[in-house]
Amino acid sequence: MVILGVDPGYAIIGWGAIRYERGRYQPLCFGAITTEAHTPFNNRLLQIYRDTVTVLEKVRPDALAIEKLYFTSNKTTAVQVCEARGVILLAAEQAGVAAFEYTPLQVKSAVTGYGKAEKPQVMEMTRRLLRLKEVPRPDDTADALAIAICHAQSGASAIKQQLMNKE
Amino acid sequence: MVILGVDPGYAIIGWGAIRYERGRYQPLCFGAITTEAHTPFNNRLLQIYRDTVTVLEKVRPDALAIEKLYFTSNKTTAVQVCEARGVILLAAEQAGVAAFEYTPLQVKSAVTGYGKAEKPQVMEMTRRLLRLKEVPRPDDTADALAIAICHAQSGASAIKQQLMNKE
Repeated sequence: MVILGVDPGYAIIGWGAIRYERGRYQPLCFGAITTEAHTPFNNRLLQIYRDTVTVLEKVRPDALAIEKLYFTSNKTTAVQVCEARGVILLAAEQAGVAAFEYTPLQVKSAVTGYGKAEKPQVMEMTRRLLRLKEVPRPDDTADALAIAICHAQSGASAIKQQLMNKE
Repeated sequence: MVILGVDPGYAIIGWGAIRYERGRYQPLCFGAITTEAHTPFNNRLLQIYRDTVTVLEKVRPDALAIEKLYFTSNKTTAVQVCEARGVILLAAEQAGVAAFEYTPLQVKSAVTGYGKAEKPQVMEMTRRLLRLKEVPRPDDTADALAIAICHAQSGASAIKQQLMNKE
């Protein structure tokens, strides 16, 4: 199963694709979509949409996993992050890719086994699980890979169940 | 100048097109994009995007005016309304249509001259300004027409300035 993890935003959108098979993770490719400040916002939305379409065409994932948003803090930018998230989800839907969302707590738990893990711990565990030499940069890309791992784990029990039924 | 007003949402998105020339408003066409509940949300996003593209192709507006969103209340649906707004703005940008946003206060002030006007007052004034027999239904469509009127009024002084420069 190929999973594309996405860390939503509008200035930097981290993305990372992994293959998950038989309990093992393999990093495929990862990066970040960036848009320039001082550019009309709708133009940034269009750029995010186009770049997401390109990433989806390149990765051809079975699923897209994206972080769930909350509005507890930073309301000023929240509207714009959600609007960007809207065009990312649209691109996935147009490509026929099912999208799943996870809370930061779920991502931390999945990667480190501890929902209150600190960011450096999550990043280091992401690096180890993917057997990478270094933590991917920027942080948004590492976050995206962690989200992809989270989806792999959440589906793992379902897959195990499926395998048992086949036996 | 042809203005397309949009009242954002994800279950019902009101839209209304008006022509504004020499201080007079002419309603062109109006309606609502609706999506069905119990449909996967990303599918609703895709439907909103497609229908917005269709409306933009039909109306070919010079500008799109949309209500500005706030996160003071109803946080549960706010994320989804913003995501829908994102795909509407994307469709406008792809069509080369500039988008403008207005607060509910600006819309009320523009239509009734009073920022704290009640909803029925705003609707009745919208009906009168557009010389319609009845207030358009659903409310979202009437709201969209009010937003279009607001944009016409906000641009009026700029246009006047432009005309003066030509003389």
